[in-house]
Amino acid sequence: MRLLSGMYAGKTTGAPIAFFIANEDQRSADYNELARLFRPGHADFSYQAKYGLRDPRGGGRSSARETAARVAGGAIAQRLLASEGINLHACTLEIGGIACECDNIATAGNRPYFAGDERIVPAWEDRIKNVRSLSDTLGGIVQIEAHGVPAGLGEPVFGKLDALLAAALMSVGAVKGVEQGAGFKAARMLGSEHNDALLPGGRFASNNAGGVLGGISSGQDIVLRAAVKPIPSTAREQKTVDTEGNPATITVGGRHDICAIPRIVPVLKAMTALVLADMLLQQRRMEKK
Amino acid sequence: MRLLSGMYAGKTTGAPIAFFIANEDQRSADYNELARLFRPGHADFSYQAKYGLRDPRGGGRSSARETAARVAGGAIAQRLLASEGINLHACTLEIGGIACECDNIATAGNRPYFAGDERIVPAWEDRIKNVRSLSDTLGGIVQIEAHGVPAGLGEPVFGKLDALLAAALMSVGAVKGVEQGAGFKAARMLGSEHNDALLPGGRFASNNAGGVLGGISSGQDIVLRAAVKPIPSTAREQKTVDTEGNPATITVGGRHDICAIPRIVPVLKAMTALVLADMLLQQRRMEKK
Amino acid sequence: MRLLSGMYAGKTTGAPIAFFIANEDQRSADYNELARLFRPGHADFSYQAKYGLRDPRGGGRSSARETAARVAGGAIAQRLLASEGINLHACTLEIGGIACECDNIATAGNRPYFAGDERIVPAWEDRIKNVRSLSDTLGGIVQIEAHGVPAGLGEPVFGKLDALLAAALMSVGAVKGVEQGAGFKAARMLGSEHNDALLPGGRFASNNAGGVLGGISSGQDIVLRAAVKPIPSTAREQKTVDTEGNPATITVGGRHDICAIPRIVPVLKAMTALVLADMLLQQRRMEKK
Amino acid sequence: MRLLSGMYAGKTTGAPIAFFIANEDQRSADYNELARLFRPGHADFSYQAKYGLRDPRGGGRSSARETAARVAGGAIAQRLLASEGINLHACTLEIGGIACECDNIATAGNRPYFAGDERIVPAWEDRIKNVRSLSDTLGGIVQIEAHGVPAGLGEPVFGKLDALLAAALMSVGAVKGVEQGAGFKAARMLGSEHNDALLPGGRFASNNAGGVLGGISSGQDIVLRAAVKPIPSTAREQKTVDTEGNPATITVGGRHDICAIPRIVPVLKAMTALVLADMLLQQRRMEKK
Repeated sequence: MRLLSGMYAGKTTGAPIAFFIANEDQRSADYNELARLFRPGHADFSYQAKYGLRDPRGGGRSSARETAARVAGGAIAQRLLASEGINLHACTLEIGGIACECDNIATAGNRPYFAGDERIVPAWEDRIKNVRSLSDTLGGIVQIEAHGVPAGLGEPVFGKLDALLAAALMSVGAVKGVEQGAGFKAARMLGSEHNDALLPGGRFASNNAGGVLGGISSGQDIVLRAAVKPIPSTAREQKTVDTEGNPATITVGGRHDICAIPRIVPVLKAMTALVLADMLLQQRRMEKK
Repeated sequence: MRLLSGMYAGKTTGAPIAFFIANEDQRSADYNELARLFRPGHADFSYQAKYGLRDPRGGGRSSARETAARVAGGAIAQRLLASEGINLHACTLEIGGIACECDNIATAGNRPYFAGDERIVPAWEDRIKNVRSLSDTLGGIVQIEAHGVPAGLGEPVFGKLDALLAAALMSVGAVKGVEQGAGFKAARMLGSEHNDALLPGGRFASNNAGGVLGGISSGQDIVLRAAVKPIPSTAREQKTVDTEGNPATITVGGRHDICAIPRIVPVLKAMTALVLADMLLQQRRMEKK
Repeated sequence: MRLLSGMYAGKTTGAPIAFFIANEDQRSADYNELARLFRPGHADFSYQAKYGLRDPRGGGRSSARETAARVAGGAIAQRLLASEGINLHACTLEIGGIACECDNIATAGNRPYFAGDERIVPAWEDRIKNVRSLSDTLGGIVQIEAHGVPAGLGEPVFGKLDALLAAALMSVGAVKGVEQGAGFKAARMLGSEHNDALLPGGRFASNNAGGVLGGISSGQDIVLRAAVKPIPSTAREQKTVDTEGNPATITVGGRHDICAIPRIVPVLKAMTALVLADMLLQQRRMEKK
Repeated sequence: MRLLSGMYAGKTTGAPIAFFIANEDQRSADYNELARLFRPGHADFSYQAKYGLRDPRGGGRSSARETAARVAGGAIAQRLLASEGINLHACTLEIGGIACECDNIATAGNRPYFAGDERIVPAWEDRIKNVRSLSDTLGGIVQIEAHGVPAGLGEPVFGKLDALLAAALMSVGAVKGVEQGAGFKAARMLGSEHNDALLPGGRFASNNAGGVLGGISSGQDIVLRAAVKPIPSTAREQKTVDTEGNPATITVGGRHDICAIPRIVPVLKAMTALVLADMLLQQRRMEKK
């Protein structure tokens, strides 16, 4: 990575921080044959429809490679947030349908797969090994939390914090669902169960809301979960069509993972950090020195 | 509703369409006592933290009343979309934990609760009646679909169609989770199961993607689901604090529903329509006459 | 004017401040005949070209009437700015080609025509009287200043303070030119004349820059001038075409002024205030409490 | 210049076109001494006030070097505009107070200084030679025109074409004034003189408006003029203060021009092109195929 702008003498200058990451590991030849086929589950077909042409070398802007920039940006945002006492954490709750609870999200960053519970790791490894032998791929579920977020971040109506966070996570390729706090389970709860009772001192008896009330942070931990689909590039033969619309079969070789987890975890953390940093700065506009 | 601008001689003029909906049914007195208590599950606490003061009369901008404007805007967007052959539909899949499949979303608009399957209605009615007797409230799950969406809508990276749709739905109060296509189930599928094989003629063998590939519409039906939390205003006594931080109890009377469904269904449809109309116009910029 | 939202108990709530100004003085009948003619110097022709139809009643959104909202918004911005020690002033430097210097812009607000120098007023009155007798109209030049602006407002490159201010003034109908500090005269000065030497204490020996260096406020007074064209609606007969493109003549009656000054002066002040308030809030994002 | 993204097989892909221009001609040592002095007429003081620190190597983002990116972007915009029959031209009307008329803007691009009238060139060369001998600098006035612009570009109220163009030109360092059509002269004209009479066939009898009516293009030539201040870096000694606020003198050596013209002319053309291309695409949103 080469830093192009925004720093001088070890400090940010206020100019945009631009950096350049050369894809030195690329093998465009891997994609030569793919230029005439639409890969299922990828953006090949929709990009062709949108732009009338596409760059077949690795999916262009729809490639997971673009998330490198998100992670770099998120690293800077996390430094800013940390200076205000806001810290981001993430863990994996589920791979290939095998779920666990998260016992301590603050330490999950050091575990294999960022596992919510370390005891689940062998089961995940077996599952991945098995699916690899089938030339197939797997998805999973990731939880992201932000601790120390002050109450008051987010904007009403269309700029709600949960809406911005949902967009941020959903904008990461492979994410097919996003939930906050109790999430989909909230749909099955009674109001009396779901409401988080307020306690003296700005505390709450529970956190079904996931840290947001009416789209504005409440001072509780921000709790998000994202559903990650299985990687669409599989070594297994799939049906598709070529760019002329003729039926074809495709096998996506290359050097693809079986599961986007754990690679997607830092991306989701980065996106959460970017939104929170934006909203933190936004809120400062209202606060006189 | 009084139309203030944007129309002349029965046509839109290109000026913003402004309208005024007087809340003639208001009873601000209902909220007098609430001014000194924070209602659990509402934005009272977070708005107070954000702005340092709040308008206690019904929650101000965080009130579900603001969705009236969304529905009016969405009605106009749906007219625009319909002129391009794009039609929106929605149905209820679950209320109070009692779920159904959707047999025909195009006719669900005429059923009680916009039920996905008419046969579920009596069970829902029993459930609501029972919960009402407990002075409690219920949530549910809604599915929204857009049919006839052309391939090519949405923008790469941060402007992906699914990200914008997730934000649009999540920006509606009470929504705690959003998923597209297979959604959270995608996390448990194999890549070979989840990938939608392409067929000649721009068709696909399945629609696990929910109409979006790489954030760009694929020409398939857009399929979204939203989890709706139970209404936080309950006639049951809840613990809270007053604005000085002292413990208190609260009972939210007023004229509140037991379940946001079916009222929230048109709101979710409207938000989906607004995003699609925006992206449709956005895409036209690339297309020469 | 009726306030619709944004205030509670005498304070702004953070919600948008919406207000409604009914045009109770309208006489749409004045415009009946104009519906089939394009008024020279007005937006009739360009709106028709843009939208394919237009609302002929007074020019719609291109009417000077829309500036009432700018003035109302600017009044609020000026309250915010005043609380930070920033004050806006404006004066008229020229009407119908008769120019004066500004002796004290802080008191010009109390003079006829907001005259920069009170002694010019009789000459302007004669000029206006004379032009009125010719059924013709006049333009002029207005100076706007902001005192007490802290150094550091504005953003680099495309968000420069002078660029935003130029757009703000030029967005007011009838403004055909904008200059800052020495303005067009700067083009005729030597570098050694134009540069404002820096003095101890954040002061400068002159203010040819008009308060902005590199697009960022310098702490000096912001000084802007706007050229205002003569009002295009004249009681004198003019050549034009009708909506079918046939030659025609037009006489614009109605109740039109001879000169947009002094009515445009508060509008220009309001626009300056709105930009400065925006940039003040923007800059706060960088400042920790 | 190295192209980083946005092109494949000789065509734009719809991805952002990123390019990297290394400043191979830099001599940061030239700026070493300047790090402790504020250069008059530069952004040194205002950037320090804004950010609390600054990158002294050549002015950072406030350096005229950033206009290289504007010119590159404008070149692409001009290709897009040309494909729609819209062509940009520019000429110099005045240097160091010596003015000319423009006889043929379409050929001015081939003349020294992009002179509006070739016969003025010797006088300008004498003036520049003389000012160079005084170690001083000069400014001037540039005219920019866009021919073939269709009627209907620009948006009402705050998005008026003339407002956006004014901001675009004023955002270029050294520009202190902007006018459109008759500009400041309009302030001295009668309404009957200034109004451009409409003729059959979408033509006009004159172009005092400079191609914009009510902020929307009229189909006439867009005509803009910008006042360019003298270059602030002079070899002549100037008064200033150091970063501690102590009085000091400064002589800016380096390799600076006497006059920003002709270097600024392509920048102003580029900025005009960028705005027109944006508005052209914006307008397409309203047009059905």
